[in-house]
Amino acid sequence: MSKPYTRLDKNDVAVLLVDHQTGLLSLVRDIDPDKFKNNVLALADIASYFKLPTVLTTSFENGPNGPLVPELKAQFPDAPYIPRPGQINAWDNEDFVKAVKATGKKQLLIAGVVTEVCVAFPALSALAEGFDVFVVTDASGTFNDVTRQAAWDRMSAAGAQLMSWFGVACELHRDWRNDIEGLGTLFSNHIPDYRNLITSYAQLTQGK
Amino acid sequence: MSKPYTRLDKNDVAVLLVDHQTGLLSLVRDIDPDKFKNNVLALADIASYFKLPTVLTTSFENGPNGPLVPELKAQFPDAPYIPRPGQINAWDNEDFVKAVKATGKKQLLIAGVVTEVCVAFPALSALAEGFDVFVVTDASGTFNDVTRQAAWDRMSAAGAQLMSWFGVACELHRDWRNDIEGLGTLFSNHIPDYRNLITSYAQLTQGK
Amino acid sequence: MSKPYTRLDKNDVAVLLVDHQTGLLSLVRDIDPDKFKNNVLALADIASYFKLPTVLTTSFENGPNGPLVPELKAQFPDAPYIPRPGQINAWDNEDFVKAVKATGKKQLLIAGVVTEVCVAFPALSALAEGFDVFVVTDASGTFNDVTRQAAWDRMSAAGAQLMSWFGVACELHRDWRNDIEGLGTLFSNHIPDYRNLITSYAQLTQGK
Amino acid sequence: MSKPYTRLDKNDVAVLLVDHQTGLLSLVRDIDPDKFKNNVLALADIASYFKLPTVLTTSFENGPNGPLVPELKAQFPDAPYIPRPGQINAWDNEDFVKAVKATGKKQLLIAGVVTEVCVAFPALSALAEGFDVFVVTDASGTFNDVTRQAAWDRMSAAGAQLMSWFGVACELHRDWRNDIEGLGTLFSNHIPDYRNLITSYAQLTQGK
Amino acid sequence: MSKPYTRLDKNDVAVLLVDHQTGLLSLVRDIDPDKFKNNVLALADIASYFKLPTVLTTSFENGPNGPLVPELKAQFPDAPYIPRPGQINAWDNEDFVKAVKATGKKQLLIAGVVTEVCVAFPALSALAEGFDVFVVTDASGTFNDVTRQAAWDRMSAAGAQLMSWFGVACELHRDWRNDIEGLGTLFSNHIPDYRNLITSYAQLTQGK
Amino acid sequence: MSKPYTRLDKNDVAVLLVDHQTGLLSLVRDIDPDKFKNNVLALADIASYFKLPTVLTTSFENGPNGPLVPELKAQFPDAPYIPRPGQINAWDNEDFVKAVKATGKKQLLIAGVVTEVCVAFPALSALAEGFDVFVVTDASGTFNDVTRQAAWDRMSAAGAQLMSWFGVACELHRDWRNDIEGLGTLFSNHIPDYRNLITSYAQLTQGK
Amino acid sequence: MSKPYTRLDKNDVAVLLVDHQTGLLSLVRDIDPDKFKNNVLALADIASYFKLPTVLTTSFENGPNGPLVPELKAQFPDAPYIPRPGQINAWDNEDFVKAVKATGKKQLLIAGVVTEVCVAFPALSALAEGFDVFVVTDASGTFNDVTRQAAWDRMSAAGAQLMSWFGVACELHRDWRNDIEGLGTLFSNHIPDYRNLITSYAQLTQGK
Amino acid sequence: MSKPYTRLDKNDVAVLLVDHQTGLLSLVRDIDPDKFKNNVLALADIASYFKLPTVLTTSFENGPNGPLVPELKAQFPDAPYIPRPGQINAWDNEDFVKAVKATGKKQLLIAGVVTEVCVAFPALSALAEGFDVFVVTDASGTFNDVTRQAAWDRMSAAGAQLMSWFGVACELHRDWRNDIEGLGTLFSNHIPDYRNLITSYAQLTQGK
Repeated sequence: MSKPYTRLDKNDVAVLLVDHQTGLLSLVRDIDPDKFKNNVLALADIASYFKLPTVLTTSFENGPNGPLVPELKAQFPDAPYIPRPGQINAWDNEDFVKAVKATGKKQLLIAGVVTEVCVAFPALSALAEGFDVFVVTDASGTFNDVTRQAAWDRMSAAGAQLMSWFGVACELHRDWRNDIEGLGTLFSNHIPDYRNLITSYAQLTQGK
Repeated sequence: MSKPYTRLDKNDVAVLLVDHQTGLLSLVRDIDPDKFKNNVLALADIASYFKLPTVLTTSFENGPNGPLVPELKAQFPDAPYIPRPGQINAWDNEDFVKAVKATGKKQLLIAGVVTEVCVAFPALSALAEGFDVFVVTDASGTFNDVTRQAAWDRMSAAGAQLMSWFGVACELHRDWRNDIEGLGTLFSNHIPDYRNLITSYAQLTQGK
Repeated sequence: MSKPYTRLDKNDVAVLLVDHQTGLLSLVRDIDPDKFKNNVLALADIASYFKLPTVLTTSFENGPNGPLVPELKAQFPDAPYIPRPGQINAWDNEDFVKAVKATGKKQLLIAGVVTEVCVAFPALSALAEGFDVFVVTDASGTFNDVTRQAAWDRMSAAGAQLMSWFGVACELHRDWRNDIEGLGTLFSNHIPDYRNLITSYAQLTQGK
Repeated sequence: MSKPYTRLDKNDVAVLLVDHQTGLLSLVRDIDPDKFKNNVLALADIASYFKLPTVLTTSFENGPNGPLVPELKAQFPDAPYIPRPGQINAWDNEDFVKAVKATGKKQLLIAGVVTEVCVAFPALSALAEGFDVFVVTDASGTFNDVTRQAAWDRMSAAGAQLMSWFGVACELHRDWRNDIEGLGTLFSNHIPDYRNLITSYAQLTQGK
Repeated sequence: MSKPYTRLDKNDVAVLLVDHQTGLLSLVRDIDPDKFKNNVLALADIASYFKLPTVLTTSFENGPNGPLVPELKAQFPDAPYIPRPGQINAWDNEDFVKAVKATGKKQLLIAGVVTEVCVAFPALSALAEGFDVFVVTDASGTFNDVTRQAAWDRMSAAGAQLMSWFGVACELHRDWRNDIEGLGTLFSNHIPDYRNLITSYAQLTQGK
Repeated sequence: MSKPYTRLDKNDVAVLLVDHQTGLLSLVRDIDPDKFKNNVLALADIASYFKLPTVLTTSFENGPNGPLVPELKAQFPDAPYIPRPGQINAWDNEDFVKAVKATGKKQLLIAGVVTEVCVAFPALSALAEGFDVFVVTDASGTFNDVTRQAAWDRMSAAGAQLMSWFGVACELHRDWRNDIEGLGTLFSNHIPDYRNLITSYAQLTQGK
Repeated sequence: MSKPYTRLDKNDVAVLLVDHQTGLLSLVRDIDPDKFKNNVLALADIASYFKLPTVLTTSFENGPNGPLVPELKAQFPDAPYIPRPGQINAWDNEDFVKAVKATGKKQLLIAGVVTEVCVAFPALSALAEGFDVFVVTDASGTFNDVTRQAAWDRMSAAGAQLMSWFGVACELHRDWRNDIEGLGTLFSNHIPDYRNLITSYAQLTQGK
Repeated sequence: MSKPYTRLDKNDVAVLLVDHQTGLLSLVRDIDPDKFKNNVLALADIASYFKLPTVLTTSFENGPNGPLVPELKAQFPDAPYIPRPGQINAWDNEDFVKAVKATGKKQLLIAGVVTEVCVAFPALSALAEGFDVFVVTDASGTFNDVTRQAAWDRMSAAGAQLMSWFGVACELHRDWRNDIEGLGTLFSNHIPDYRNLITSYAQLTQGK
């Protein structure tokens, strides 16, 4: 009666980045801003590195919610970009769903702001349509721990798998030998402790 | 085997506010009082804004538990108001259940004090009778984190969906275009960060 | 597919207090000692007040684990008391299981020290034999939050219901009118905030 | 519909220690280093004490991840030791799976660094192949609480049982009389509070 | 060698509100936004209630820092309002210092955003000029606890007295009999627990 | 330039208990209610045990602040009891100061609710008059950690010594041999861990 | 008797970066690694931006402590760089002290790893020689909060001023008009919330 | 007016270990037991390594307080050992003071259980007699953070310097070259992260 192990397959994954907008980000208080920024950019780098089709969407970006953070816009210049005219659940926007389905992928990585709305609503809708949904929990933010825990419970109970960006990268890559340097660089750029390990190692082995 | 996505539908929702009484509120210590007061009033404003039938109930309001907080009484002057003579589980009170059923709604938003009793008991009873139950977690309070977590586990396992007032508002509204100003005002009144975004935005766009 | 709402029925409940021993209590660090002592004694008072058959058991009480706390021994002088000669899972002790079954009750309230062993093991065993198991989470203690959360997850997944002593008292009592003073006294003795409400109330109403 | 109670049986258990490497350990920040070291060594002592077949594996141990901590290498000189050339999920390494299956055991105790990858991936794979999986949560570490909670949710939903090393020891031992001194020594070496109880006890009983 | 007890005297106090601007407020993360907003407005109400001369100032209010929160602007329509053209330390702005000195008061209550800059800099400057400085700590906010603690240490060591808005109100009022209703209303508006006490009290005494 | 070591001398100490009233206690949120109640009663027991002259005072006890907690009233039936008609700083009440001075003691132990007002104000006033002031920090409570830390800083800078009830008891008693059983009983009644030590000890030494 | 207000003067400041080495950084656990890395690089950018003479030093950089983090080495290619052969207190190294004195500055900004040693020791030594010492607390890290608090107390009591990098930048810059874009860029690069404010602002004002 | 920098000098230091007894240790809850045990043993190793005269003392070791932890007894077989017959402040015991003075040292490192009594009392007494007192904060434990903070404030205000065992070791050693291996071993034995650094380093440099 348990959830079966649906494993991320880089050939069957699309990434949905929902409402990482400059105004909405001021609402996020369950993760420290330095760490949260890093987590979101790490997920973006994963999408780029594994060449995963990525769909961007925003809510009212000309209003107080603010524009998409420029780093994401710049990193995915050719990705479908759906500024929603009003739908709060991105899945209620036909263009968004079309863009998702156009990727032809069955596994969806979803992250966004705020977790219980911009992430949970499309996650629940996608699950209802039979997609495999993986929530990138640490690239999603919300008001506080209480709202996060409630959102996680709702999504998990509906069948979503809760992951973190590091787990996503590892499950997609599967074997370091596929590209040691590529994955190492990704980790070095987003995990200070890992970067330190690599620097110490390099000094001792290459410094000679 | 997962819970299906039952989505809040403003035409099929009733709100049950259980035992937000001045005495009982002194027991709430899992959420800061400033924030908790705001969350409860935000939920009340949601009920008013979406014209959701609302049922109020209290337990022993002439004793140490104290009266319903006056703000709620004032906001819902015509709502069914059931001061229970003794039943701890509001669902054990026939008048309460009648009032709930008289709304003709199948989806119940429940919040109250304290979570593991005044919320959990009617939530479990309503689930047992086939209602869709949505717990408004952050408008419900209890003694500490341990009692909250246990109460959530019990309710979620029984089929309740755990939400927060912000998620409730968004899922009910569905599309900003239904009334931008209305929802914006609600958020501005209950989310200081959102109010600040709106003020900054207004200065730059309307101040010219 | 959800757990059905099995409701505590005072006529069908037995209480199992497992290994609240003076030595073992020094291991409990997930709840503050002042609060934990109060929670355990509150559960004991519930058992006495509702005249619930209660079974006491200890593990190696002549060794470093120390004796049962004297308050419990004094409060239940006639309760079955099973000092286990070695079995870690109380359910592995025939006398204990006999004592439990001799109560003729189907609903078991279990609390003890430490949560993941002395509570979880008999809880899982009792569930496997078809009992309805209710864990009194705040009258059970363990080393830290991590071990508690893992223990809760294991028990909840196996079908146990997680409660707190306050919820237990309320679910058993059902209606204040069954005995206002009795329940009020119990709360007054174990919830300082509630006692204060009652004192304030009494001064204003009876002081005149 | 609940998970049945699968109980650890010392005759049917194998222990998998995954990637407790000196470099990777610097990534662990959800448990304090003093405590985490103690937990890992406690699990190792459990494996030795109960003579459980143990499989060790590492990821890229000649690179920045660093070597296996020497204490584990020293404690299990004859255990299968699989330095993986690249597979991130140990279960993707044929030698590792062969070593696990060669133990002939159906119950797997898994611990490692980091939880959501080195533990969760083989745990999910083993569950998919029908093994009973027990995660030793406190001998597994990761970046922070958020990643740990997500990883636990994923594993638990897939059928894993979450335990702690103390619970594991107790469930394996079953009865103190099997060897009082052996288990007592294990606890004394890894639980300072328990050691203090034993010392106090010994002074009063043997000091005379 | 201790600091002497300099007591707030409502006839000798001026209030300085520094940079409570809509943009800068998004930087405050050492106090929850609901509570922080309440604290700032409580201090404003204190200034109004005790008719304390109040000086408002902002930094770059037409840029990203955003305008002064409208509530403060509305509450003090006639107060000196100094939008600083660039000085970070308000005390470096001649108009601000003039406005402060024009009040003729020797005791300064200072609050602002962020604590270690907008509060600490003028506080240190005012101390250097011989003013008695009282920092309203909970109406001042900053990035996190570490920056707050460092800022407090610096200000306290320089001779500032650290207070909270509640302490300020009480020290200014001195005797409830000066105006019971006034102070009671102020507390009722800003301390939910106090409001509840008053409501319970009123029901029992006036409800009859 | 350091504060000299002024040591508590049981012949020169008076205890001031300020505003431990049933209503005001609902404001205390920096210490858990179970623990706080215990701390206050422990301090009362210290006063009784060492026969320290004790002065009780309340603020507006017929209003929402509520009456003095009955336990204190009962424990000190003959102590000077000054219900203040309005003065917030107890030291502004002549009767209170007279009662304090009538004790003839130079060392004052002060505790109360809330810390930054009911404790800090008389503490600062007493210091200004040359008394040695010892704040019993854990028998004093306030809204949150921020207000507590600010209050402590203000009092310590003015020359107060910050203590806890356990330290007070030990410094007053000086030598266990003055009365082993008396002090042991006091600790046993207020420190569950200490009580457990004593029970374990008694079983092993007296049980034979 | 208070510390006078010694204000940072960009013409009289030198920056000392002590032992930010890749190995030692794994010891830092009182600040999250993402945030800590950002803080250190922010301080480095301050040193560059204000052209403050900067002195780098390391301890045993060829051993387990590891090399200086490459970012710092790269940013200050011409700065005095003193790899200490063994002195733990950098001030015990003559070359280091010479380099500091060669700057001709009287105000020293010190940051390093770990706080109670690599920062506190030279800070205390420099104070003893009459320098004005400013500890950049959030660019300094150590094992845990307890060691940090003790280290701060020792340094503050000896006369050091505790600051954070943001306060340092603001006190050095004094007036935004000295270079709006320069300071804005520095903040945008190191404070995600500030960057978001700037992006929102730019869209509304320049996007038209 | 600041405290001068009194630097630890290994030729002028004595170590006082006060009441690290098996019973009293169950009272310590401000530091995790695994970490606390490690800290105390680290301080003991410092005393041994630097051959610092060490004085041991206990309070009522035949009663519930329990015996000195055997590790300390074993490590200092020839140290003066003063089991106090009743004095709570060790400095009130003549033999203890004689033993301290017999060391001929002026600098005292003090650690013990509990901080506000067994550490603070002799620390204050020794300061009053002109000794330089250094509190080893992390080898001292107490009931909770509140009692610790109050105790630190009292000791620091009286002139004590607050340190941690790591800072003590570093200040005593002064220069790694005095004995690289000795200090490295001490750190490796008590800092898991440091041990990992050394292991990684050794593999890369010596493994070739």
